Amino acid sequence: MSKLTDPKNLSKTELEAGTSFAPRFDANGLILAVVTDAESDAILMAAYMNEEALRLTFNTGFVHFFSRSRNSLWKKGESSGELLEFVEMRVDCDQDILQVRATQRGAGAACHTGRKTCFYRAVAMDDDGFSVKDLGIKPLFDPNERYK
Amino acid sequence: MSKLTDPKNLSKTELEAGTSFAPRFDANGLILAVVTDAESDAILMAAYMNEEALRLTFNTGFVHFFSRSRNSLWKKGESSGELLEFVEMRVDCDQDILQVRATQRGAGAACHTGRKTCFYRAVAMDDDGFSVKDLGIKPLFDPNERYK
Repeated sequence: MSKLTDPKNLSKTELEAGTSFAPRFDANGLILAVVTDAESDAILMAAYMNEEALRLTFNTGFVHFFSRSRNSLWKKGESSGELLEFVEMRVDCDQDILQVRATQRGAGAACHTGRKTCFYRAVAMDDDGFSVKDLGIKPLFDPNERYK
Repeated sequence: MSKLTDPKNLSKTELEAGTSFAPRFDANGLILAVVTDAESDAILMAAYMNEEALRLTFNTGFVHFFSRSRNSLWKKGESSGELLEFVEMRVDCDQDILQVRATQRGAGAACHTGRKTCFYRAVAMDDDGFSVKDLGIKPLFDPNERYK
């Protein structure tokens, strides 16, 4: 199994303009992955990957994460059926965030609330302060039924 | 100045389905903001906001961040002219990541490399291991000229 490049061994120019993939995992060995719909480009969700989740995403063709709350590897959709089929991974200029382009399987809900996307509310600010407003994106299934 | 809701005071249901905006800042008082093109939905960049940057984004109409490397407030595009005009903020289900929909001003480059987006490389995996491949997104200006 080939090793990943250690970003500490790269200059800023090599990190930003070279050909080495050197993901800058944080102190816990995690990197944020923002999942976007491969067709529409819309943001679906964001979660963390460790090195194993990253490799499994390439090797299985399905998006894997590392769950911080459960402290374990997490194949997205394993219990809900809402799998994310892996299309392409991109990395940002300083290699500390991943974009994962994917195709949603199952009912089409990346969010555990049953919605297509986790970003289903807009933040509003008025004289009374901040609030969130539902954008009207309807759940595609009842999460209480699906996850029981 | 109205206070933000403390997420510790909310139940999971209130956090995910209520009307309170309760951003879950990390131990350093920061929350990740993913900036997307308000028209195309494409990811442009991602950076951190503290509470002041979040408020200034609403109050000025231009996207502000907190720079971890410079340890200071950062009005995006202040030195480069590549301002991001604020359109809408969204928050994810558990309120630990923001999506900021914006319109790029200046030459149209959200990335300091002069490209429209920071996600200009795809990650490839083959028998020799991982590498990154430039997607061919051309810089809109020469960063060495612009930032001198």
